[in-house]
Amino acid sequence: MKLYDSHRAPNPRRVRWVMAEKGIEDVEIIQVDIMSGEHKTREYRDRVGVPHVPSLELDDGACISESVAICRYLEALYPEPNLFGHDPKEQAIIEMWTRRCEFYLANPIMLNVRHSHPALAALEAVQVPQLADYNRVAAERFMKTLDRHLAEHEFIAADRFTIADVVSAVGLDFARLIKYRPPEDLTNLARWFEACRARPAAKAGV
Amino acid sequence: MKLYDSHRAPNPRRVRWVMAEKGIEDVEIIQVDIMSGEHKTREYRDRVGVPHVPSLELDDGACISESVAICRYLEALYPEPNLFGHDPKEQAIIEMWTRRCEFYLANPIMLNVRHSHPALAALEAVQVPQLADYNRVAAERFMKTLDRHLAEHEFIAADRFTIADVVSAVGLDFARLIKYRPPEDLTNLARWFEACRARPAAKAGV
Repeated sequence: MKLYDSHRAPNPRRVRWVMAEKGIEDVEIIQVDIMSGEHKTREYRDRVGVPHVPSLELDDGACISESVAICRYLEALYPEPNLFGHDPKEQAIIEMWTRRCEFYLANPIMLNVRHSHPALAALEAVQVPQLADYNRVAAERFMKTLDRHLAEHEFIAADRFTIADVVSAVGLDFARLIKYRPPEDLTNLARWFEACRARPAAKAGV
Repeated sequence: MKLYDSHRAPNPRRVRWVMAEKGIEDVEIIQVDIMSGEHKTREYRDRVGVPHVPSLELDDGACISESVAICRYLEALYPEPNLFGHDPKEQAIIEMWTRRCEFYLANPIMLNVRHSHPALAALEAVQVPQLADYNRVAAERFMKTLDRHLAEHEFIAADRFTIADVVSAVGLDFARLIKYRPPEDLTNLARWFEACRARPAAKAGV
């Protein structure tokens, strides 16, 4: 299999992090230069269907895009360590938290960065300052919810590290591009974030 | 089990539609009045964890929110008809399309409506016109992609109706609130949309 990757982009990083957690080493990594628009070329779009990274090309030539779909597929092939849940109820709770963290934390942070960092103007049809502000506020609102949750939980969605932690940690880390730091009073969030960044896979996957 | 529902909101409708497709009739439906802020009450938040509908309360009292997580959980309990895929590859392709349709169609439409419909101002801290415009443009961009795809496919993600169709059809239908119609030249999208709306479950689930 081949992973179409873009080194600094957050969504491909989710996949690399999951691969590192699972010790997956037999996937060929192919760098796509999104800053020069390589993902928008006819050749890339014909292969993947959309101008997005990451995409996983299977051995039969089929391409799967969307980071969480790729990660769940990798979980089916490489079940250990389990990141998506062992039974339907645990899977539902992990998916619930993953979606909350994606929609209310990771995506708002990504939109904040992409609509405020001068160098990322190339990725948008137009940068909209109101969109950056709206999303920073939204992300900080959910950080408070998450901080309260993490006061009583070591990890976000289960009694162990899961895909919800990957999505959240990658999202928060992406804000470094604009030198953003979460509010300092969110000490539970800070404790959890440091624990995620200290994992060997966090370093290997970056 | 109990489903905390809000009759006119699009995300709970996804769950009702899936229940209707699967003929699930043993879930108690509880209406939550989001226009009067019932989802923001202490009692509701203590139960569900977040001020969102839908939420599925299991018989052990655990609550699962996030529409697609609820639908996937229902698929595990009521496997037929299959809406999420039979094997890891098909599951990945269906999740890929579901996410594309959610992020690039359903969510932008929802944001467009919520930031432009006067009666929905009560649901937002502040309505941002730029956000409405940005999301209408984004949704129409993906409608064109979807129209090309549907020129060669009866349904979005597989050779049958799946969760990707539910998410997309509910999203498009929500735009009726602002009397929005997709561009008329997208004839494949129109053909698929009519087929979705003609399903018995579409009517039962609304």
